[in-house]
Amino acid sequence: MTAAKSGTLYGVGLGPGDPELVTLKAARILREAPVVAHFRKKGRPGHARSIAASHMCATTVEAAFEYPVTTEIDFRDEAYVGAIRDFYSASAQAIAAHLEGGRDVALLCEGDPFFYGSFLHMYDRIKIAHPVRVIPGITGMSGCWTAAAAPITYGDDVLTVLPGTLDRAALARHLKSADAAVIMKVGHNIEKIKQALEETGRFADAIYVERGTMQGERVMPLAELNDDAVPYFSIILLPGGRGRRIL
Amino acid sequence: MTAAKSGTLYGVGLGPGDPELVTLKAARILREAPVVAHFRKKGRPGHARSIAASHMCATTVEAAFEYPVTTEIDFRDEAYVGAIRDFYSASAQAIAAHLEGGRDVALLCEGDPFFYGSFLHMYDRIKIAHPVRVIPGITGMSGCWTAAAAPITYGDDVLTVLPGTLDRAALARHLKSADAAVIMKVGHNIEKIKQALEETGRFADAIYVERGTMQGERVMPLAELNDDAVPYFSIILLPGGRGRRIL
Repeated sequence: MTAAKSGTLYGVGLGPGDPELVTLKAARILREAPVVAHFRKKGRPGHARSIAASHMCATTVEAAFEYPVTTEIDFRDEAYVGAIRDFYSASAQAIAAHLEGGRDVALLCEGDPFFYGSFLHMYDRIKIAHPVRVIPGITGMSGCWTAAAAPITYGDDVLTVLPGTLDRAALARHLKSADAAVIMKVGHNIEKIKQALEETGRFADAIYVERGTMQGERVMPLAELNDDAVPYFSIILLPGGRGRRIL
Repeated sequence: MTAAKSGTLYGVGLGPGDPELVTLKAARILREAPVVAHFRKKGRPGHARSIAASHMCATTVEAAFEYPVTTEIDFRDEAYVGAIRDFYSASAQAIAAHLEGGRDVALLCEGDPFFYGSFLHMYDRIKIAHPVRVIPGITGMSGCWTAAAAPITYGDDVLTVLPGTLDRAALARHLKSADAAVIMKVGHNIEKIKQALEETGRFADAIYVERGTMQGERVMPLAELNDDAVPYFSIILLPGGRGRRIL
Protein backbone atom coordinates (compact mmCIF):
# COMPACT_ATOMS: atom_id res chain seq x y z
CA MET A 1 0.00 0.00 0.00
CA THR A 2 1.31 3.45 -0.89
CA ALA A 3 0.60 6.43 1.36
CA ALA A 4 -1.58 9.09 -0.29
CA LYS A 5 0.22 12.20 -1.49
CA SER A 6 -0.23 14.85 1.22
CA GLY A 7 -2.86 17.50 0.66
CA THR A 8 -1.88 21.18 0.88
CA LEU A 9 -2.99 23.55 3.62
CA TYR A 10 -4.09 26.89 2.14
CA GLY A 11 -4.17 29.86 4.51
CA VAL A 12 -6.85 31.90 2.75
CA GLY A 13 -6.89 35.63 3.55
CA LEU A 14 -10.46 36.89 3.31
CA GLY A 15 -9.80 40.60 3.77
CA PRO A 16 -11.31 43.12 6.20
CA GLY A 17 -14.93 41.95 6.20
CA ASP A 18 -16.77 43.16 3.09
CA PRO A 19 -17.37 39.92 1.12
CA GLU A 20 -16.64 41.80 -2.12
CA LEU A 21 -13.09 42.45 -0.88
CA VAL A 22 -12.22 38.77 -1.27
CA THR A 23 -9.65 38.19 -4.03
CA LEU A 24 -10.23 36.14 -7.17
CA LYS A 25 -7.58 33.70 -5.92
CA ALA A 26 -9.22 33.22 -2.52
CA ALA A 27 -12.59 32.67 -4.22
CA ARG A 28 -11.04 30.02 -6.48
CA ILE A 29 -9.35 28.16 -3.61
CA LEU A 30 -12.65 28.15 -1.70
CA ARG A 31 -14.46 26.71 -4.73
CA GLU A 32 -11.85 24.00 -5.27
CA ALA A 33 -10.88 22.90 -1.76
CA PRO A 34 -12.61 19.69 -0.61
CA VAL A 35 -12.28 20.79 3.04
CA VAL A 36 -12.84 24.29 4.48
CA ALA A 37 -11.73 24.84 8.09
CA HIS A 38 -12.33 27.83 10.33
CA PHE A 39 -12.05 29.05 13.91
CA ARG A 40 -15.01 30.61 15.68
CA LYS A 41 -16.26 31.66 19.06
CA LYS A 42 -18.42 29.10 20.86
CA GLY A 43 -22.01 29.10 19.62
CA ARG A 44 -21.38 31.68 16.87
CA PRO A 45 -21.64 30.98 13.11
CA GLY A 46 -18.24 32.65 12.65
CA HIS A 47 -17.54 35.78 10.70
CA ALA A 48 -14.93 34.27 8.38
CA ARG A 49 -17.43 31.54 7.48
CA SER A 50 -20.05 34.10 6.44
CA ILE A 51 -17.56 35.96 4.19
CA ALA A 52 -16.57 32.70 2.50
CA ALA A 53 -20.03 31.10 2.28
CA SER A 54 -20.98 32.17 -1.25
CA HIS A 55 -17.84 30.52 -2.71
CA MET A 56 -18.22 27.12 -1.05
CA CYS A 57 -19.85 24.13 -2.79
CA ALA A 58 -22.58 21.75 -1.66
CA THR A 59 -19.94 19.01 -1.38
CA THR A 60 -17.46 21.04 0.69
CA VAL A 61 -16.61 19.33 3.98
CA GLU A 62 -16.53 21.81 6.84
CA ALA A 63 -14.36 21.70 9.95
CA ALA A 64 -15.22 24.31 12.61
CA PHE A 65 -12.90 24.72 15.61
CA GLU A 66 -14.49 26.50 18.58
CA TYR A 67 -12.25 28.56 20.88
CA PRO A 68 -12.39 27.21 24.43
CA VAL A 69 -11.84 30.72 25.88
CA THR A 70 -12.28 34.35 24.81
CA THR A 71 -9.49 36.24 23.04
CA GLU A 72 -8.98 38.96 25.64
CA ILE A 73 -7.54 36.92 28.51
CA ASP A 74 -3.97 37.83 29.41
CA PHE A 75 -1.56 35.52 27.59
CA ARG A 76 0.62 35.39 30.72
CA ASP A 77 -2.19 33.50 32.50
CA GLU A 78 -0.97 29.87 32.68
CA ALA A 79 -4.44 28.30 32.64
CA TYR A 80 -5.28 30.23 29.49
CA VAL A 81 -2.01 29.31 27.82
CA GLY A 82 -2.57 25.63 28.60
CA ALA A 83 -6.16 25.57 27.34
CA ILE A 84 -5.39 27.41 24.13
CA ARG A 85 -2.26 25.35 23.45
CA ASP A 86 -4.25 22.12 23.73
CA PHE A 87 -6.94 23.58 21.50
CA TYR A 88 -4.49 24.62 18.77
CA SER A 89 -2.74 21.24 18.90
CA ALA A 90 -6.03 19.35 18.53
CA SER A 91 -7.10 21.63 15.65
CA ALA A 92 -3.77 21.07 13.88
CA GLN A 93 -4.20 17.30 14.29
CA ALA A 94 -7.66 17.45 12.74
CA ILE A 95 -6.29 19.43 9.79
CA ALA A 96 -3.31 17.07 9.44
CA ALA A 97 -5.68 14.08 9.27
CA HIS A 98 -7.32 15.57 6.16
CA LEU A 99 -3.93 16.37 4.59
CA GLU A 100 -2.69 12.84 5.27
CA GLY A 101 -5.79 11.57 3.48
CA GLY A 102 -4.69 13.57 0.43
CA ARG A 103 -7.35 16.27 0.83
CA ASP A 104 -6.44 19.97 0.49
CA VAL A 105 -7.69 22.13 3.36
CA ALA A 106 -8.58 25.83 2.99
CA LEU A 107 -8.26 27.49 6.40
CA LEU A 108 -10.24 30.74 6.55
CA CYS A 109 -8.35 33.79 7.85
CA GLU A 110 -9.86 37.24 8.38
CA GLY A 111 -7.50 39.94 7.10
CA ASP A 112 -4.06 38.80 5.95
CA PRO A 113 -2.78 35.43 7.27
CA PHE A 114 0.83 36.57 7.85
CA PHE A 115 -0.14 39.82 9.59
CA TYR A 116 -0.98 39.11 13.27
CA GLY A 117 -2.97 36.09 12.07
CA SER A 118 -4.15 33.39 14.45
CA PHE A 119 -3.47 31.29 11.33
CA LEU A 120 0.18 31.35 12.46
CA HIS A 121 -0.62 28.89 15.25
CA MET A 122 -1.58 26.36 12.56
CA TYR A 123 1.16 27.42 10.13
CA ASP A 124 3.95 26.77 12.62
CA ARG A 125 2.58 23.31 13.45
CA ILE A 126 1.52 22.09 9.99
CA LYS A 127 4.45 23.29 7.88
CA ILE A 128 6.77 20.85 9.66
CA ALA A 129 5.23 17.90 7.83
CA HIS A 130 2.93 19.22 5.07
CA PRO A 131 2.96 21.73 2.21
CA VAL A 132 1.38 25.08 3.12
CA ARG A 133 0.47 27.93 0.79
CA VAL A 134 -0.78 31.36 1.79
CA ILE A 135 -3.19 33.62 -0.11
CA PRO A 136 -2.68 37.18 1.14
CA GLY A 137 -5.71 39.31 1.99
CA ILE A 138 -6.45 42.98 2.55
CA THR A 139 -5.63 43.77 6.18
CA GLY A 140 -8.26 44.93 8.65
CA MET A 141 -6.32 48.18 9.08
CA SER A 142 -6.48 48.89 5.34
CA GLY A 143 -10.25 48.33 5.45
CA CYS A 144 -10.41 50.79 8.34
CA TRP A 145 -8.40 53.62 6.74
CA THR A 146 -10.43 53.18 3.56
CA ALA A 147 -13.69 53.29 5.56
CA ALA A 148 -12.46 56.47 7.28
CA ALA A 149 -11.46 58.06 3.93
CA ALA A 150 -8.12 58.67 5.66
CA PRO A 151 -4.99 58.18 3.51
CA ILE A 152 -2.61 56.65 6.05
CA THR A 153 0.80 57.42 4.49
CA TYR A 154 2.15 59.99 2.06
CA GLY A 155 5.63 60.15 0.55
CA ASP A 156 8.27 59.61 3.23
CA ASP A 157 5.97 58.95 6.20
CA VAL A 158 7.02 56.28 8.68
CA LEU A 159 4.10 54.04 9.68
CA THR A 160 4.08 52.30 13.05
CA VAL A 161 1.60 49.52 13.81
CA LEU A 162 1.06 49.04 17.54
CA PRO A 163 -0.86 46.36 19.41
CA GLY A 164 -3.01 48.08 22.03
CA THR A 165 -1.89 45.38 24.44
CA LEU A 166 1.47 47.16 24.95
CA ASP A 167 1.86 49.11 28.19
CA ARG A 168 1.25 52.85 28.19
CA ALA A 169 4.90 53.85 28.29
CA ALA A 170 5.72 51.65 25.28
CA LEU A 171 2.75 53.00 23.34
CA ALA A 172 3.79 56.58 24.07
CA ARG A 173 7.42 55.93 23.16
CA HIS A 174 6.44 54.52 19.75
CA LEU A 175 3.83 57.20 19.09
CA LYS A 176 6.45 59.90 19.66
CA SER A 177 8.59 58.64 16.77
CA ALA A 178 5.77 57.75 14.34
CA ASP A 179 4.52 59.94 11.50
CA ALA A 180 1.48 57.74 10.93
CA ALA A 181 0.26 55.08 13.35
CA VAL A 182 -2.31 52.31 13.58
CA ILE A 183 -3.30 50.91 16.97
CA MET A 184 -4.80 47.40 16.76
CA LYS A 185 -6.52 45.22 19.38
CA VAL A 186 -8.21 48.13 21.14
CA GLY A 187 -10.88 46.39 23.27
CA HIS A 188 -10.35 46.90 26.98
CA ASN A 189 -7.06 48.71 26.28
CA ILE A 190 -8.99 51.82 25.21
CA GLU A 191 -8.37 54.02 28.29
CA LYS A 192 -4.64 53.25 28.33
CA ILE A 193 -4.44 54.05 24.59
CA LYS A 194 -6.27 57.36 25.07
CA GLN A 195 -3.79 58.30 27.81
CA ALA A 196 -0.79 57.48 25.60
CA LEU A 197 -2.27 59.56 22.76
CA GLU A 198 -2.90 62.52 25.08
CA GLU A 199 0.58 62.26 26.58
CA THR A 200 2.09 62.53 23.09
CA GLY A 201 -0.19 65.27 21.77
CA ARG A 202 -1.83 62.97 19.21
CA PHE A 203 -5.28 62.54 20.77
CA ALA A 204 -7.05 65.22 18.71
CA ASP A 205 -5.92 63.62 15.41
CA ALA A 206 -6.95 60.07 16.28
CA ILE A 207 -9.79 58.36 14.39
CA TYR A 208 -11.76 55.48 15.86
CA VAL A 209 -13.01 52.75 13.47
CA GLU A 210 -15.24 49.84 14.45
CA ARG A 211 -16.29 47.06 12.03
CA GLY A 212 -14.53 48.77 9.08
CA THR A 213 -16.09 47.81 5.68
CA MET A 214 -18.78 45.71 7.47
CA GLN A 215 -22.39 46.15 8.42
CA GLY A 216 -22.56 48.32 11.53
CA GLU A 217 -19.37 50.20 10.57
CA ARG A 218 -18.63 53.20 12.81
CA VAL A 219 -16.06 55.91 12.07
CA MET A 220 -15.55 58.95 14.30
CA PRO A 221 -12.92 61.18 15.88
CA LEU A 222 -11.68 59.28 18.95
CA ALA A 223 -12.46 62.42 20.97
CA GLU A 224 -16.18 61.85 20.27
CA LEU A 225 -16.20 58.21 21.40
CA ASN A 226 -18.13 57.85 24.66
CA ASP A 227 -18.62 54.07 24.79
CA ASP A 228 -17.77 52.31 28.04
CA ALA A 229 -16.63 49.21 26.17
CA VAL A 230 -15.45 48.70 22.57
CA PRO A 231 -14.75 45.57 20.51
CA TYR A 232 -11.31 43.94 20.61
CA PHE A 233 -10.89 44.32 16.83
CA SER A 234 -11.59 48.06 16.74
CA ILE A 235 -8.74 50.12 15.32
CA ILE A 236 -7.42 53.61 16.01
CA LEU A 237 -5.76 55.53 13.16
CA LEU A 238 -3.32 58.43 13.18
CA PRO A 239 -3.06 59.42 9.51
CA GLY A 240 0.27 60.72 8.18
CA GLY A 241 0.88 63.51 5.70
CA ARG A 242 1.63 66.20 8.27
CA GLY A 243 3.55 69.13 6.84
CA ARG A 244 2.89 67.85 3.35
CA ARG A 245 2.65 70.15 0.35
CA ILE A 246 0.54 69.27 -2.66
CA LEU A 247 2.85 68.30 -5.47
CA MET B 1 -29.82 73.15 -19.86
CA THR B 2 -29.06 71.22 -16.69
CA ALA B 3 -25.49 70.26 -15.84
CA ALA B 4 -24.89 66.50 -15.87
CA LYS B 5 -24.65 64.83 -12.46
CA SER B 6 -20.95 64.43 -11.66
CA GLY B 7 -19.39 61.05 -12.23
CA THR B 8 -17.48 59.37 -9.38
CA LEU B 9 -13.73 58.83 -9.29
CA TYR B 10 -12.90 55.30 -8.11
CA GLY B 11 -9.39 54.73 -6.81
CA VAL B 12 -9.09 51.03 -7.59
CA GLY B 13 -6.46 49.10 -5.62
CA LEU B 14 -5.13 46.26 -7.78
CA GLY B 15 -2.95 44.53 -5.19
CA PRO B 16 0.72 43.53 -5.33
CA GLY B 17 0.96 42.34 -8.94
CA ASP B 18 -0.49 38.83 -9.34
CA PRO B 19 -3.67 39.45 -11.41
CA GLU B 20 -5.49 36.82 -9.33
CA LEU B 21 -4.99 38.99 -6.22
CA VAL B 22 -7.45 41.56 -7.57
CA THR B 23 -10.62 41.73 -5.42
CA LEU B 24 -14.12 40.94 -6.66
CA LYS B 25 -15.04 44.59 -6.04
CA ALA B 26 -12.12 45.95 -8.09
CA ALA B 27 -13.00 43.54 -10.92
CA ARG B 28 -16.62 44.75 -10.86
CA ILE B 29 -15.68 48.45 -10.92
CA LEU B 30 -13.33 47.80 -13.87
CA ARG B 31 -16.13 46.03 -15.76
CA GLU B 32 -18.63 48.82 -15.08
CA ALA B 33 -16.58 52.01 -15.38
CA PRO B 34 -16.94 53.78 -18.76
CA VAL B 35 -13.45 55.32 -18.35
CA VAL B 36 -10.29 53.62 -17.01
CA ALA B 37 -7.34 55.90 -16.27
CA HIS B 38 -3.79 54.98 -15.36
CA PHE B 39 -0.30 56.38 -14.92
CA ARG B 40 2.65 54.83 -16.66
CA LYS B 41 6.28 55.41 -17.56
CA LYS B 42 6.89 56.91 -20.99
CA GLY B 43 6.72 54.31 -23.74
CA ARG B 44 5.71 51.45 -21.41
CA PRO B 45 2.35 49.62 -21.52
CA GLY B 46 2.03 50.14 -17.76
CA HIS B 47 1.97 47.40 -15.16
CA ALA B 48 -1.34 48.44 -13.58
CA ARG B 49 -2.93 48.31 -17.04
CA SER B 50 -1.80 44.73 -17.58
CA ILE B 51 -3.22 43.59 -14.21
CA ALA B 52 -6.58 45.22 -15.01
CA ALA B 53 -6.77 44.28 -18.70
CA SER B 54 -8.85 41.11 -18.43
CA HIS B 55 -11.68 42.98 -16.62
CA MET B 56 -12.04 45.86 -19.07
CA CYS B 57 -14.64 45.90 -21.86
CA ALA B 58 -14.36 46.58 -25.58
CA THR B 59 -16.17 49.87 -25.01
CA THR B 60 -14.01 51.09 -22.11
CA VAL B 61 -12.45 54.49 -22.82
CA GLU B 62 -8.81 54.57 -21.70
CA ALA B 63 -6.86 57.55 -20.43
CA ALA B 64 -3.11 56.94 -19.99
CA PHE B 65 -1.01 59.60 -18.28
CA GLU B 66 2.73 59.33 -18.96
CA TYR B 67 5.16 60.51 -16.29
CA PRO B 68 7.37 63.30 -17.63
CA VAL B 69 10.28 62.20 -15.36
CA THR B 70 11.44 59.09 -13.51
CA THR B 71 10.37 58.40 -9.94
CA GLU B 72 13.79 58.41 -8.34
CA ILE B 73 14.71 62.07 -8.73
CA ASP B 74 15.07 63.91 -5.42
CA PHE B 75 11.79 65.60 -4.53
CA ARG B 76 13.74 68.62 -3.25
CA ASP B 77 14.85 69.33 -6.84
CA GLU B 78 12.78 72.35 -7.91
CA ALA B 79 12.73 71.48 -11.62
CA TYR B 80 11.38 68.03 -10.79
CA VAL B 81 8.77 69.39 -8.43
CA GLY B 82 7.60 71.88 -11.06
CA ALA B 83 7.38 69.30 -13.86
CA ILE B 84 5.57 66.72 -11.77
CA ARG B 85 3.17 69.28 -10.29
CA ASP B 86 2.16 70.44 -13.78
CA PHE B 87 1.76 66.82 -14.86
CA TYR B 88 -0.50 65.92 -11.91
CA SER B 89 -2.59 69.07 -12.42
CA ALA B 90 -3.10 68.31 -16.11
CA SER B 91 -3.98 64.68 -15.33
CA ALA B 92 -6.51 65.79 -12.69
CA GLN B 93 -8.08 68.17 -15.20
CA ALA B 94 -8.45 65.36 -17.75
CA ILE B 95 -10.12 63.16 -15.12
CA ALA B 96 -12.36 66.02 -14.00
CA ALA B 97 -13.52 66.58 -17.58
CA HIS B 98 -14.88 63.01 -17.67
CA LEU B 99 -16.53 63.40 -14.26
CA GLU B 100 -18.16 66.68 -15.33
CA GLY B 101 -19.56 64.84 -18.34
CA GLY B 102 -21.23 62.43 -15.92
CA ARG B 103 -18.82 59.55 -16.59
CA ASP B 104 -17.36 57.50 -13.73
CA VAL B 105 -13.58 57.08 -13.90
CA ALA B 106 -11.70 54.07 -12.48
CA LEU B 107 -8.13 55.12 -11.70
CA LEU B 108 -5.81 52.10 -11.50
CA CYS B 109 -3.59 51.90 -8.41
CA GLU B 110 -0.97 49.23 -7.76
CA GLY B 111 -1.14 48.06 -4.15
CA ASP B 112 -3.49 49.95 -1.84
CA PRO B 113 -4.51 53.49 -2.88
CA PHE B 114 -4.30 55.02 0.63
CA PHE B 115 -0.91 53.42 1.46
CA TYR B 116 1.88 55.53 -0.11
CA GLY B 117 -0.23 55.70 -3.27
CA SER B 118 0.56 58.13 -6.09
CA PHE B 119 -3.25 58.05 -6.31
CA LEU B 120 -3.16 60.57 -3.45
CA HIS B 121 -2.01 63.28 -5.85
CA MET B 122 -5.30 62.84 -7.73
CA TYR B 123 -7.37 62.26 -4.59
CA ASP B 124 -6.36 65.56 -3.00
CA ARG B 125 -7.19 67.48 -6.17
CA ILE B 126 -10.39 65.74 -7.29
CA LYS B 127 -12.18 65.33 -3.95
CA ILE B 128 -12.57 69.11 -3.67
CA ALA B 129 -15.26 69.13 -6.36
CA HIS B 130 -16.25 65.52 -7.11
CA PRO B 131 -17.26 62.33 -5.30
CA VAL B 132 -14.36 59.90 -4.79
CA ARG B 133 -14.53 56.29 -3.62
CA VAL B 134 -11.62 54.04 -2.83
CA ILE B 135 -11.38 50.27 -3.26
CA PRO B 136 -8.59 48.98 -0.99
CA GLY B 137 -6.06 46.51 -2.36
CA ILE B 138 -3.48 44.12 -0.97
CA THR B 139 -0.31 46.10 -0.33
CA GLY B 140 2.95 45.38 -2.12
CA MET B 141 4.56 44.60 1.24
CA SER B 142 1.93 41.95 1.98
CA GLY B 143 2.61 40.37 -1.41
CA CYS B 144 6.32 40.36 -0.53
CA TRP B 145 6.03 38.74 2.92
CA THR B 146 3.70 36.14 1.43
CA ALA B 147 6.16 35.47 -1.41
CA ALA B 148 8.94 35.09 1.17
CA ALA B 149 6.83 32.71 3.32
CA ALA B 150 7.75 35.07 6.15
CA PRO B 151 5.01 35.82 8.71
CA ILE B 152 5.70 39.49 9.44
CA THR B 153 4.02 39.93 12.86
CA TYR B 154 3.10 37.64 15.73
CA GLY B 155 1.11 38.53 18.86
CA ASP B 156 2.38 41.77 20.35
CA ASP B 157 4.99 42.67 17.71
CA VAL B 158 5.36 46.31 16.74
CA LEU B 159 5.67 46.73 12.96
CA THR B 160 7.50 49.74 11.52
CA VAL B 161 7.23 50.61 7.83
CA LEU B 162 10.13 52.73 6.64
CA PRO B 163 10.70 54.46 3.30
CA GLY B 164 14.27 53.72 2.19
CA THR B 165 14.53 57.39 1.26
CA LEU B 166 15.09 58.33 4.94
CA ASP B 167 18.67 59.14 5.93
CA ARG B 168 20.79 56.45 7.57
CA ALA B 169 20.54 57.81 11.09
CA ALA B 170 16.73 57.95 10.90
CA LEU B 171 16.58 54.41 9.49
CA ALA B 172 18.81 53.10 12.29
CA ARG B 173 16.85 54.94 14.99
CA HIS B 174 13.57 53.37 13.83
CA LEU B 175 15.09 49.92 13.31
CA LYS B 176 16.34 49.92 16.90
CA SER B 177 12.82 50.23 18.31
CA ALA B 178 11.04 47.92 15.82
CA ASP B 179 10.19 44.26 16.41
CA ALA B 180 9.29 43.72 12.74
CA ALA B 181 10.13 46.13 9.94
CA VAL B 182 9.47 46.65 6.25
CA ILE B 183 11.71 48.92 4.21
CA MET B 184 10.04 50.22 1.04
CA LYS B 185 11.42 52.18 -1.94
CA VAL B 186 14.78 50.45 -1.89
CA GLY B 187 16.25 51.34 -5.33
CA HIS B 188 19.43 53.40 -5.09
CA ASN B 189 19.02 53.58 -1.30
CA ILE B 190 20.26 49.99 -0.98
CA GLU B 191 23.77 50.68 0.38
CA LYS B 192 22.51 53.15 2.98
CA ILE B 193 19.84 50.65 4.08
CA LYS B 194 22.44 47.85 4.40
CA GLN B 195 24.56 50.11 6.59
CA ALA B 196 21.62 50.98 8.86
CA LEU B 197 20.76 47.28 9.19
CA GLU B 198 24.37 46.39 10.07
CA GLU B 199 24.62 49.25 12.54
CA THR B 200 21.56 47.91 14.40
CA GLY B 201 22.48 44.22 14.25
CA ARG B 202 19.57 43.35 11.95
CA PHE B 203 21.43 42.68 8.69
CA ALA B 204 21.59 38.88 9.04
CA ASP B 205 17.79 38.62 9.49
CA ALA B 206 16.87 40.82 6.52
CA ILE B 207 15.10 39.32 3.49
CA TYR B 208 15.24 40.94 0.05
CA VAL B 209 12.15 40.65 -2.20
CA GLU B 210 11.94 41.87 -5.78
CA ARG B 211 8.74 41.70 -7.90
CA GLY B 212 6.82 39.89 -5.11
CA THR B 213 3.91 37.73 -6.50
CA MET B 214 4.90 38.64 -10.08
CA GLN B 215 6.77 36.98 -12.92
CA GLY B 216 10.49 37.29 -12.22
CA GLU B 217 9.95 37.24 -8.45
CA ARG B 218 13.19 37.00 -6.43
CA VAL B 219 13.42 36.23 -2.71
CA MET B 220 16.73 35.84 -0.86
CA PRO B 221 18.57 36.73 2.32
CA LEU B 222 19.75 40.32 1.86
CA ALA B 223 23.24 39.07 2.75
CA GLU B 224 23.25 37.06 -0.52
CA LEU B 225 22.26 40.00 -2.75
CA ASN B 226 25.18 41.04 -4.93
CA ASP B 227 23.41 43.25 -7.50
CA ASP B 228 24.91 46.66 -8.22
CA ALA B 229 21.47 48.15 -8.80
CA VAL B 230 17.99 47.06 -7.66
CA PRO B 231 14.49 48.24 -8.59
CA TYR B 232 12.89 51.15 -6.72
CA PHE B 233 9.92 49.00 -5.67
CA SER B 234 11.99 46.20 -4.13
CA ILE B 235 11.25 45.61 -0.44
CA ILE B 236 13.34 44.49 2.51
CA LEU B 237 11.64 42.54 5.32
CA LEU B 238 12.62 42.00 8.94
CA PRO B 239 10.10 39.44 10.21
CA GLY B 240 8.90 39.64 13.82
CA GLY B 241 8.24 36.82 16.23
CA ARG B 242 11.59 36.95 18.01
CA GLY B 243 11.55 35.28 21.41
CA ARG B 244 8.20 33.78 20.61
CA ARG B 245 7.01 30.48 22.10
CA ILE B 246 4.57 28.24 20.27
CA LEU B 247 1.21 28.53 21.96
